[in-house]
Amino acid sequence: MILSNRLSASRYLSEGKKIIDAAVLSLLPQQDAYPDVIHKAMHYSLRAGGKRLRPVLVIAAAEAVGGDRKAVLPFAVAAELIHTYTLIHDDLPALDNDDLRRGKPANHKVFGEAVAILTGDALLTQAFILMTQSAGMKPVPPARLLDAAHEMATALGSAGMIGGQVVDLESEGKPIDAETLEYIHVHKTGFLIQACIRCGGILSQATPRQLSALSRFGAHVGLAFQIVDDILDITGNEKKIGKDMGGDLTKDKATYPSLYGLEESRRKAESLVEESVACLQEFDGRADPLRDIARFFVRRTF
Amino acid sequence: MILSNRLSASRYLSEGKKIIDAAVLSLLPQQDAYPDVIHKAMHYSLRAGGKRLRPVLVIAAAEAVGGDRKAVLPFAVAAELIHTYTLIHDDLPALDNDDLRRGKPANHKVFGEAVAILTGDALLTQAFILMTQSAGMKPVPPARLLDAAHEMATALGSAGMIGGQVVDLESEGKPIDAETLEYIHVHKTGFLIQACIRCGGILSQATPRQLSALSRFGAHVGLAFQIVDDILDITGNEKKIGKDMGGDLTKDKATYPSLYGLEESRRKAESLVEESVACLQEFDGRADPLRDIARFFVRRTF
Repeated sequence: MILSNRLSASRYLSEGKKIIDAAVLSLLPQQDAYPDVIHKAMHYSLRAGGKRLRPVLVIAAAEAVGGDRKAVLPFAVAAELIHTYTLIHDDLPALDNDDLRRGKPANHKVFGEAVAILTGDALLTQAFILMTQSAGMKPVPPARLLDAAHEMATALGSAGMIGGQVVDLESEGKPIDAETLEYIHVHKTGFLIQACIRCGGILSQATPRQLSALSRFGAHVGLAFQIVDDILDITGNEKKIGKDMGGDLTKDKATYPSLYGLEESRRKAESLVEESVACLQEFDGRADPLRDIARFFVRRTF
Repeated sequence: MILSNRLSASRYLSEGKKIIDAAVLSLLPQQDAYPDVIHKAMHYSLRAGGKRLRPVLVIAAAEAVGGDRKAVLPFAVAAELIHTYTLIHDDLPALDNDDLRRGKPANHKVFGEAVAILTGDALLTQAFILMTQSAGMKPVPPARLLDAAHEMATALGSAGMIGGQVVDLESEGKPIDAETLEYIHVHKTGFLIQACIRCGGILSQATPRQLSALSRFGAHVGLAFQIVDDILDITGNEKKIGKDMGGDLTKDKATYPSLYGLEESRRKAESLVEESVACLQEFDGRADPLRDIARFFVRRTF
């Protein structure tokens, strides 16, 4: 059972990654388009690898409610652009000051700080260009597109993801309590993951009941994934994760393992994933990729 | 005639500014909302003044085709958030390194670089939250909202405004030709102004013919305003403009006056404005505010 989850999740993810990689190239301006420095910098960070987890979740959520992956592809790509924008801005000297990302020099190390700031801005903007494009490969009603774009924007705003980044910044070097840590994780990581899942549903005409189940699934999974990231930051190896290891510890950042220990963190992630899968009980086999991906990601920690 | 233009433009602008100032406060998260540092920083830069020219152009373009100002208010506010985001990121040490903006310390001088980067990100995101909000004060069809949001996003992207910023950055300290200077001005300033004018029209059910006229009007006016800014950067006084004077000269940036001289630049701006007004010849008296604002802004240089 575990093996079969793992196989099917990893097959779905690698197939999804191929689709997304091709779509990213076709939905971005060419890297030699004028002015080429910004387009080279956008392509550099997007080609640096990554699992394409967020776009695959958009597709998996769409398929879970009977939607068409082609119809959600511009949104799926937008999710990856948004994720990449947050990494580029996070890595800046004024923020986390990380030199390495996905095993390669961070954007600001290659292109300089000014271009890195503008590259993040350009990727966020390009995401909205894609999300508001009504001439998609298969038309989704404009009202649904608008709702999904609004959902995504709200998840990313000052009361969402950016709120999480600000509290994270402010908490560096200070002892923080469990409530603050959960706020950071839910906002900084969870909101985008939940929005990806909800947008997949919204664009695929999910019913309010299905959307509510996807929301709960997304909330649990988003927090679980961040706990897993915290665990891997301690137990993983640099090559596999592709960033400076123990970075959060050296920056004196609170994490789940530092507050609860490794074992308890693993239990927490595992139980969140089981709760998330339980939210999908009314869904049929078309939701298996969502279920499998959720379990797969948490079991990376064992 | 000139006096009456000036009076009516300045009345329309000051009335518009009041409407926008109130709407900004009602459409942003409160400044003490958690996490308060980001909301204080957003409010700080938005309350620092400014003529609210871009949002007033959204309203004036809407009214020029018989639209309702209430229906375009969220978009008008979004335009001001976008303008403010670009100022905050432009002023960062890695970019223009300006300490003063609108007569007050720049955002990064008050809140630090990290928060200033996130404040810009948050304002751009909040703009898209507003532009994709279907529950407006007066409903506009979702397809029109989507088109307008797409128009705005495209104007701001790597082939639009950010493209202009990148070429501007790369041109510092180098001799540039007239073509490059026009690229910078059209992209860095003109595209947003033109998008404001087009969005006002799109949201107000402008016909394709009206929209095409508004586009041409916006293109001429956008370039004219930037030439005027270049002129005022030399001839204005610091208190009136509210930023370091001669900043562009000390940074060895090419401007219209440095390439063409003051007199020729004034002539160029004046002729662009007359061409812009000519684009509106099929519009009735409801387009007078647009015409008056265009002339008013250019005559500031005399």
